[in-house]
Amino acid sequence: MEKIIRAARGLDKADLVLKNGEIINVFTMKLEKADVAICEGKICGIGTYEGLEEVDISGKFVAPGFMDGHIHIESSLMMPAEFSKAVIVHGTTAVMTDPHEIANVCGTQGIDFMMEESVNLPLDIYFLLPSCVPSSSFDEGGAVLEASDLSPYYSNEKVLGLAELMDYPGTISADKKILDKIKDACGKTIDGHAPGLKGKNLCAYIAAGVMSDHECISIDEALERISLGMTVMIREGTAAKNLSSLIKLFEKPYCDCCILATDDKHPESLINEGHIDHIIRKAVKLGADPITAVKMATYNTARYFGLRKKGAVAPGYDADLVVLSDLNNVNVDMVYKNGILIAEKGEEIFSTNDKYNRYFNDEKSSLNHKNHKYYRIFNSFNMRTLSEEDFFINSSDNINKIRTISLVPGEIATKMEIMDYNQETNGISVENDVLKLAVIERHKDSGHIGLGFIHGYGLKRGAIASSVSHDAHNLIVIGTNEYDMCTAANMVRNMQGGLAVADGSFKEILPLSAAGLMSNLSASELAENMADIRHAAMSLGAAEGIDPFMTLAFVSLPVIPEVRLTTLGLVDVDSQSLISTFEQ
Amino acid sequence: MEKIIRAARGLDKADLVLKNGEIINVFTMKLEKADVAICEGKICGIGTYEGLEEVDISGKFVAPGFMDGHIHIESSLMMPAEFSKAVIVHGTTAVMTDPHEIANVCGTQGIDFMMEESVNLPLDIYFLLPSCVPSSSFDEGGAVLEASDLSPYYSNEKVLGLAELMDYPGTISADKKILDKIKDACGKTIDGHAPGLKGKNLCAYIAAGVMSDHECISIDEALERISLGMTVMIREGTAAKNLSSLIKLFEKPYCDCCILATDDKHPESLINEGHIDHIIRKAVKLGADPITAVKMATYNTARYFGLRKKGAVAPGYDADLVVLSDLNNVNVDMVYKNGILIAEKGEEIFSTNDKYNRYFNDEKSSLNHKNHKYYRIFNSFNMRTLSEEDFFINSSDNINKIRTISLVPGEIATKMEIMDYNQETNGISVENDVLKLAVIERHKDSGHIGLGFIHGYGLKRGAIASSVSHDAHNLIVIGTNEYDMCTAANMVRNMQGGLAVADGSFKEILPLSAAGLMSNLSASELAENMADIRHAAMSLGAAEGIDPFMTLAFVSLPVIPEVRLTTLGLVDVDSQSLISTFEQ
Repeated sequence: MEKIIRAARGLDKADLVLKNGEIINVFTMKLEKADVAICEGKICGIGTYEGLEEVDISGKFVAPGFMDGHIHIESSLMMPAEFSKAVIVHGTTAVMTDPHEIANVCGTQGIDFMMEESVNLPLDIYFLLPSCVPSSSFDEGGAVLEASDLSPYYSNEKVLGLAELMDYPGTISADKKILDKIKDACGKTIDGHAPGLKGKNLCAYIAAGVMSDHECISIDEALERISLGMTVMIREGTAAKNLSSLIKLFEKPYCDCCILATDDKHPESLINEGHIDHIIRKAVKLGADPITAVKMATYNTARYFGLRKKGAVAPGYDADLVVLSDLNNVNVDMVYKNGILIAEKGEEIFSTNDKYNRYFNDEKSSLNHKNHKYYRIFNSFNMRTLSEEDFFINSSDNINKIRTISLVPGEIATKMEIMDYNQETNGISVENDVLKLAVIERHKDSGHIGLGFIHGYGLKRGAIASSVSHDAHNLIVIGTNEYDMCTAANMVRNMQGGLAVADGSFKEILPLSAAGLMSNLSASELAENMADIRHAAMSLGAAEGIDPFMTLAFVSLPVIPEVRLTTLGLVDVDSQSLISTFEQ
Repeated sequence: MEKIIRAARGLDKADLVLKNGEIINVFTMKLEKADVAICEGKICGIGTYEGLEEVDISGKFVAPGFMDGHIHIESSLMMPAEFSKAVIVHGTTAVMTDPHEIANVCGTQGIDFMMEESVNLPLDIYFLLPSCVPSSSFDEGGAVLEASDLSPYYSNEKVLGLAELMDYPGTISADKKILDKIKDACGKTIDGHAPGLKGKNLCAYIAAGVMSDHECISIDEALERISLGMTVMIREGTAAKNLSSLIKLFEKPYCDCCILATDDKHPESLINEGHIDHIIRKAVKLGADPITAVKMATYNTARYFGLRKKGAVAPGYDADLVVLSDLNNVNVDMVYKNGILIAEKGEEIFSTNDKYNRYFNDEKSSLNHKNHKYYRIFNSFNMRTLSEEDFFINSSDNINKIRTISLVPGEIATKMEIMDYNQETNGISVENDVLKLAVIERHKDSGHIGLGFIHGYGLKRGAIASSVSHDAHNLIVIGTNEYDMCTAANMVRNMQGGLAVADGSFKEILPLSAAGLMSNLSASELAENMADIRHAAMSLGAAEGIDPFMTLAFVSLPVIPEVRLTTLGLVDVDSQSLISTFEQ
């Protein structure tokens, strides 16, 4: 501290001085031309300073490092180290992540793994604990997390609270298990997820302790939440894009109650669009004040999560800084973390040494020992090899109608549709776009396989399988015939998770061997491989406007209306009950 | 929690509903007409509600309970229980206090005493730990508090951080003892006190960890602090009044960085003007937006101190509420604490039972046992009886000039003035308004007595003595002759502290037997007694524009320029050195 104080007073040179830039001051809401002096990773002074190292940034802008208020890192398909590289070049220096996906596969071991993989990175990865594992009793995941499983994590300073409480019906029914989780998180941040909740039920949800919501899709929803004291996370990610609907929130006084988040972010959109910089850029294009947008992406986020030394360019703050060459276009020129240059002109400047991806670098023999602490992460498939017979449905002769899951273009929601049943083809009708869907339990070798039919996906031949299947991440496969379905599913099983396309002898895979969710590839490699396998999927005839893998990822999630297929069979979401695939 | 959730949903009646009021919404910055439903001391819902008890507040306004961001309760001369009564009627439901005065007299025992006296009151009394005891090495107080004395208190949830770091020279000199105190407070709030500090020195002070300042007297000072990330406490108390100079801070965006505080508040001004309500009222009269002013006095304060469940009228917040019958005049109609009506139309509604003022109610015999844990609080005078000779100055024959402390009208600052020395009267010259001043060490029976001369006080006869004498609170006495000085000083000594006026057989006292700082009287009794003794002091001829006791309270504080008298003698503040009373 003495060194910092002396540098601040100008008695000694600072470690680093960013000279002559325009500081984005989140307190005065003005641009202020001054030097930023940095010492021991902290900003020590604003004014005119000399440094051991000096960087002239005349004509450029200095912002606090950007923060993503809510993201599931697993959605990027990257491990934390590669994810870090992909986002820091866009000016992100902190993310608040909910390891909800890996926790559904590997429980607390998944949380431990993500936390361990997140240390010593040039990105602050903070954790909110997954509050709803499993999401539903129809979701046969790899773990059940109770309050007692979560509470030990709160002593970790990287754990900021409880993640999106998506079981809002349970919360406002005062479900004891949920209230216990809230109670344990008391004093920390409790994130919400309550699409459509309003009025007294919303009051109850907030009174229970929930502080934010990232599910607002309309301005009315957002304003009601703000009026009741919630922080609204304006979400603009790969899957859900709410920014343009919520652009009014960048105005006073609402902006003070809002922060920015992506929720889910795929590698291609990280590379092509950017991260939080993309949201700020888009907001400014839509008319937002850039200083306000920067404040929402930095200071507001830090304050919401109780981080007092982050989110501003001022003395005493961590020197997590973004230098922008253009304010309105949010062109990220340089990124500093704790005063260290970590990215410049779109390239990260830190080496992937043995600290990162450590378990991918382990000898396979070591990982395959069952007593390796992360054995389960890299051996998350616990199921037998499938045979073609597993995909046939036993039906009695007098059946002639089926309940199908009908996709709604551009939405995650589905409709139930009654369609004709063709007994000869075991229900599949490529010409009518009625395909077979299977969800195979892959965590506990229960042998549970849910079989059903789906309409609107468009596949003309072959099959597509994936282990990214919210929230339980069972093995899901869609196909035009049982043989290719079996092939594609076994390909995913045999590589311990990933994406697969099969059409006779034509095969394409993308391995996701960490919990069946993440790869050890970089963002650019993943983007390329994703493009290849998506192209393969589209070549089998998937419908225009369908993202083949993202669509598959949601058809098994039994908390989104109207009808879903899980390992236990077809689920009517509204009534939360199993229903028969066959119409009597 | 289940009860709160059910009440929020309207499934059960709430405990209490404030119906049809205009809510001051600190998020939307609007008035919003709705019912406020309260259950188990928390606000559970905003909307249309039914309650077991319903109070119609049509045409009235509901604000969060007001908060004083920085006050020394001792300045009110009241014990916490009576202080609470005096402020809750003005809508205050929380204060952040620094028990700096009693700590200078009784050390950690003083802190313990204040904390114990603050429980079970209808006012949240939060503590910031006194950071500078003693304020200076020339201040012979009753205690020295090191970092190790303070650190155990941080585990107490009522302790919010470290109080005003007034030793800013030490801080920016990286004094290890100060840095240790800052380090221990890390993660909590660290208040500042840095009049006049600016530029790089201010950066150093902030970089060291200091988060706020309540010593701004000019808008430029305030804006520099805000720009560097500090919270500015706009102070308007009895002693210092900075509101009108800082009224611009009620504008956007500065208002987001400011809170309200009184610092020192005497009983008469509490009764005659009010407390935080008075500051809001005056700000509105000076042009501030009332909703903004209310937010600064509530939500901003709560956020600055990290209190997430205070400072707003919204679900999940503590039901600490003020009902105003008029917004612009801030007329406090009713005050609720945790959903309980504690004050109505200027009268507190809670009984002073045996929980309060417990030690005043103890049998004197018990308190006078040296092993009583608060013996020292009520027996804080450890000094022999004084004799008239103690007040004579030994001087050699060749002295004919003296250095006097010259009061500056309307300021706490003093000037040094060289004046003629009249050996026959031992220096006193009533006609020239040169009076004698004595500061007598009263904590450790050291026998130290500082003697000097003061100009500008105006006394024509008699003497005035007090044990309220910043920061060491030694016994200070001013007089026109040694006999009355001795009488007044012994009167204070014999009553274990207080104020005394003596002029021959004319005597007037006001006992302050808790540490020589506080009485067990109520605000109105104290105001009356203060008026009496002030009248007595004025009747001895104290100058127009002099508050006789407030002036005395500061002439011994060796950290305010230009010259002060302590138990060790005359102190030149700028050079921090002792100087002779006699000019050679």
